[in-house]
Amino acid sequence: MSKLGKQTWWFQSEPRVVTTGTIAGRIESEGPLGSWFDIRLDKDGMQSHSWEQDEQALFNQTAILTLQKSGISPRQVDLLIGGDLNAQLSGFYFGLRDLPSPSLGIYSACSSSTEALALAGLALDGGVAQYVLTGTSSHNSTAERQFRYPTEYGVQRPPTAQRTVTGAGMALLGKTGSEIALTAATIGRVVDYGITSPWEFGAAMAPAAEDTIIAHLQDTGRNLEDYDCIATGDLGHIGHKILRDLLHNRGLDPGHRLTDCGILIYRPDQPEVFSGGSGAACSSLVTFSYLLHQLQFGRWRRILVAATGALLSTVAAQQGETIPSICHAVTFERKDASS
Amino acid sequence: MSKLGKQTWWFQSEPRVVTTGTIAGRIESEGPLGSWFDIRLDKDGMQSHSWEQDEQALFNQTAILTLQKSGISPRQVDLLIGGDLNAQLSGFYFGLRDLPSPSLGIYSACSSSTEALALAGLALDGGVAQYVLTGTSSHNSTAERQFRYPTEYGVQRPPTAQRTVTGAGMALLGKTGSEIALTAATIGRVVDYGITSPWEFGAAMAPAAEDTIIAHLQDTGRNLEDYDCIATGDLGHIGHKILRDLLHNRGLDPGHRLTDCGILIYRPDQPEVFSGGSGAACSSLVTFSYLLHQLQFGRWRRILVAATGALLSTVAAQQGETIPSICHAVTFERKDASS
Repeated sequence: MSKLGKQTWWFQSEPRVVTTGTIAGRIESEGPLGSWFDIRLDKDGMQSHSWEQDEQALFNQTAILTLQKSGISPRQVDLLIGGDLNAQLSGFYFGLRDLPSPSLGIYSACSSSTEALALAGLALDGGVAQYVLTGTSSHNSTAERQFRYPTEYGVQRPPTAQRTVTGAGMALLGKTGSEIALTAATIGRVVDYGITSPWEFGAAMAPAAEDTIIAHLQDTGRNLEDYDCIATGDLGHIGHKILRDLLHNRGLDPGHRLTDCGILIYRPDQPEVFSGGSGAACSSLVTFSYLLHQLQFGRWRRILVAATGALLSTVAAQQGETIPSICHAVTFERKDASS
Repeated sequence: MSKLGKQTWWFQSEPRVVTTGTIAGRIESEGPLGSWFDIRLDKDGMQSHSWEQDEQALFNQTAILTLQKSGISPRQVDLLIGGDLNAQLSGFYFGLRDLPSPSLGIYSACSSSTEALALAGLALDGGVAQYVLTGTSSHNSTAERQFRYPTEYGVQRPPTAQRTVTGAGMALLGKTGSEIALTAATIGRVVDYGITSPWEFGAAMAPAAEDTIIAHLQDTGRNLEDYDCIATGDLGHIGHKILRDLLHNRGLDPGHRLTDCGILIYRPDQPEVFSGGSGAACSSLVTFSYLLHQLQFGRWRRILVAATGALLSTVAAQQGETIPSICHAVTFERKDASS
């Protein structure tokens, strides 16, 4: 393990993705990536007594699915790392409480997926874990009622709004596994451009994505062209355009290699998706299904996943606070079969 | 770096505590440890526009204080790791947003302080950081209105209740520094004994403390007697008694070396402290003042800090859910002067 520049961790032992698991809600399953998800729900959630319990069940089932695909038993998992958008991480802690592994809850809103992956890489590369199970969940109805209005209230949403993804995505990482390696992580800084509207996440997060992508390139000495795909977390259509403008101002043109998990997950004509998807599960669902499969199939060799988090707090928003944002990025690369 | 047993990380490079910083609220400053805190407030909080902003200011000032004492500039800090009890970690992310370092938000309720220390040790021992600034905040009035009732409501509290500590405690850790080394961390598992009352944190968390302390002893091959002090996070008087009973059932008698940060921080006759202190800042305030100073003065050689977290969620509590709990433990040892 070593450090590149100021913000990037390089995982020299090249920890591997063993298996991934994805369970997607109804709207997500009807989207363009539907066929890539392991389990596609025909109703949102699993119909427990509450939306929160639905989300916990989603997270739990995704963990079990990911482990079942691997043949690794829950007791072999050295570490669980994850988070969700619910206050006090009830998705993660309640959903996975019957698993017997040491657990680390983390939170950086919708960049929790890559924060968890970065720490998984650190633990594996540092030799304190053989297997780490990591991932995130989100649920449209738990997030809407927490951050904005209960969905039952039927409030009209502006076109800048993004739809919080329902689902959970997890990955089991190990010292050996598939040909896909987690090779580096760039830890983001908090960036606050003064956006206050909880409907404007894309604008709030785009400068954080720019900051981390630029730091990653500087730290690694690479160019945008060294990546087959650079996928931000969930800037949506509006935030994605802002990020392109910000990069353009630096003389950088990412072309088609720059995409966004929030754009990929929905068709623009799906109902009420507006600017695209968001939520802690948006980047984990897209990364652990569509993106990693492109590496697995050999279509791509190296990708950068830069999940973005709007660090909105319910109370802070009501107090008129701005929305600080953050972006953590990880690189996945296709290597020869498990070394 | 290596792994001992199933849950313990051993930091072979022995990362050092460079400096610590503590700012305590009024009631905490009037308690028996008052003279150990760097800054003692004569009013609770810093009198901003809201309790939340008070807490953010506390966290921010503690970070600045800790760095000032060290002579290390904010730009030399490779990583900020911390958390608090506010939904979406607004204490950490809003309070420290003007610091320029890469930031990792973590959450495990009142065990956040030791979760952050464990990850700081991992980053330092793994060579991806030279300096890590880590810590937690809590504020009585932000926590009460989030988890129970606004303090202005004046609800009567039962004798099992604990008082959420107002304050912030931070430590700057580095590859070199003082004679105090962070030598190991034991990562806890989620334990749920079915307690549902948000006034019964001590009972909910005691089994988690037992689980992690036993795991630590098994992993390291040590006995209780190998520690000069074993301080749980904030079980309070009632939880502490339960933990003693649980250990006694295993044939273990920790004697006077077992104490609790929630007991240490208040005198029993202070107003409305009931079973003792709690809150994410309880263990960080006590550890980064009184406990580490005993190592510094040579009174002790090795301590175990086992911060405990009640993973209560506001929404989950209203839905009648139980309170899963967790405990992460770290060891500090006095070594020869900075190697």
